[in-house]
Amino acid sequence: MKEITLKQIAETLGISVTTVSKALKGYSDVNEKTRQSVLDLASSLQYTPNSFAVNLRTKESKTIGLVIPEVVHHFFSNVIKGIIEEAEKNGYLVIILQSNESLELEKKQIELLINKRVDGIIISLSNDANNEIYLQQIIDREIPFVQFDKISKLIPSSKVIINDQKAAYQAVKHLIDKGCKKIAHIRGPINPQNAIDRFLGYKKALEDHNITFDSSLVYPCKHVTFEEGKEFAARILADHKDVDGIFVITDMVAVGVLAHFNEHQIKVPEQIKIIGFSNWFMSQVITPKLSTVDQPSFEMGEQAFKLLLEEMHARKEFLPFTPRTIELDTSIIERESTF
Amino acid sequence: MKEITLKQIAETLGISVTTVSKALKGYSDVNEKTRQSVLDLASSLQYTPNSFAVNLRTKESKTIGLVIPEVVHHFFSNVIKGIIEEAEKNGYLVIILQSNESLELEKKQIELLINKRVDGIIISLSNDANNEIYLQQIIDREIPFVQFDKISKLIPSSKVIINDQKAAYQAVKHLIDKGCKKIAHIRGPINPQNAIDRFLGYKKALEDHNITFDSSLVYPCKHVTFEEGKEFAARILADHKDVDGIFVITDMVAVGVLAHFNEHQIKVPEQIKIIGFSNWFMSQVITPKLSTVDQPSFEMGEQAFKLLLEEMHARKEFLPFTPRTIELDTSIIERESTF
Repeated sequence: MKEITLKQIAETLGISVTTVSKALKGYSDVNEKTRQSVLDLASSLQYTPNSFAVNLRTKESKTIGLVIPEVVHHFFSNVIKGIIEEAEKNGYLVIILQSNESLELEKKQIELLINKRVDGIIISLSNDANNEIYLQQIIDREIPFVQFDKISKLIPSSKVIINDQKAAYQAVKHLIDKGCKKIAHIRGPINPQNAIDRFLGYKKALEDHNITFDSSLVYPCKHVTFEEGKEFAARILADHKDVDGIFVITDMVAVGVLAHFNEHQIKVPEQIKIIGFSNWFMSQVITPKLSTVDQPSFEMGEQAFKLLLEEMHARKEFLPFTPRTIELDTSIIERESTF
Repeated sequence: MKEITLKQIAETLGISVTTVSKALKGYSDVNEKTRQSVLDLASSLQYTPNSFAVNLRTKESKTIGLVIPEVVHHFFSNVIKGIIEEAEKNGYLVIILQSNESLELEKKQIELLINKRVDGIIISLSNDANNEIYLQQIIDREIPFVQFDKISKLIPSSKVIINDQKAAYQAVKHLIDKGCKKIAHIRGPINPQNAIDRFLGYKKALEDHNITFDSSLVYPCKHVTFEEGKEFAARILADHKDVDGIFVITDMVAVGVLAHFNEHQIKVPEQIKIIGFSNWFMSQVITPKLSTVDQPSFEMGEQAFKLLLEEMHARKEFLPFTPRTIELDTSIIERESTF
């Protein structure tokens, strides 16, 4: 890449680099004629100030890092959209890294972002995240830091979350209100906090409505995919002929369940009612349309950036900063799969 | 001060730029006599690699910029995945910017990336892109640059594309082979090259099969959305009662068409057959399942990064680089909507 430097402008005009620099910044101790020739030459050479040099001066990179498990994902791509739109408004660029649900990759990416001197980091943890030492270093280095969705409760950063336990409780209560008596739960992997909380919400809703909890009705996903939905649908039918409701960790898996039931003439909602989680776009276009929990993904991204910005401003001004947690509301969307 | 370039040294001595570059670096595969003449000439011309060659290594940001119209989009999110996975393997970070189909934003984002001194830029143009001056500056500054999917043919950068005209031709031929005689086309906006090419493929397929082209059967999208699909479905029914096939610019819009037909008891494929484009995930889970053109989005991302890497390496070593265009294969996926 061709780099036009202050030095080249200075040499061409036969003046000092300092004078060129002052002229470009509009300092009053450079005479008008010199200033104009510097500006004209800079313009004709398409000179742009080197951002590395600017960064050294201001110690800001105006760049933040975002680490998420998966880009091709309705929920996460909406969060990304929220973050980059809010960052754009405030003059920040966003480096996006995908952990692919791998703890090793996640650790490496955080190292990279720290070495890159980003101004702040936003993260949603991989399913494998199981110790917090590599997250604690972000806090220890006083790098502005926000967690969202899949978080570690132990790390004292700002957070944007929903109340997963309450949202799951409402989803299961919706099935009970519709007459379900034997409700299976296709849950997320064992590790992530939000999968644990949704499971706890499921369990509590059963208990509060005098339905005995039966652990054989709980099916944990490994990869949280469409294919797993199809497999679990078959297993639930084989294991428990009388299941009449299923609460599924996320819409993508629920759509797999529906696909299997459609292929095998299991009537939804007549025989089995299904409710998903996250309100993926496709849930409203499949047959039958899928009931789900609406999760404000775009807003989650916006709020995550806003919290990060608060902390970046505070750190820059050496002001005290206390991490905050924002909890966003969810709601039940009733569609054909639970009529 | 005039810059002495490797090219001038090479031309003066009648040898290649590569040989000059190697000679200056002391590579052993340049013979001693040639090496000495290069060094002598460089010395007498006061060639100073310092001015732009040295430090280039340390000036590398190991960061590239990606500008795309939309993150929440099955095709683009798969391309992003391909790019960041390939970048990751090669130690590069990816800044992702979303133009939201706005030309103004796109221009601003390119400026930002140039000022940020990214090592290279990958772009898929917004629908509004209509002049190429802001793209030409990337070329003029010799910044490694790859266009994909929505490209400007006039800009001499590397490109990763599909043959949109051929793919559209095959889609329409598929409808004709299935017996369709009056085929509507819901096309993309007027501007983007890929929308133009798909339209031309539609037109040519009709002509080659002795079906008279009728411009009233062509419906241009503004926003390429699910909602537009629903609207055009209603308009096509109102305008042309006897349409028996529709070729739609992309699956998201085609799913809107299907939704309207499902709501109004129009039988697909019996009454009207539909084929989309891009093979979005949801196309295989809706009822009826949507026939479509499979477009290798993940591979497109991988190839785009690989081409960028080639150019970044070449520029770093001051080797000549000729932009290349990679054309990826597409295929027709037949599903229930065209049985």
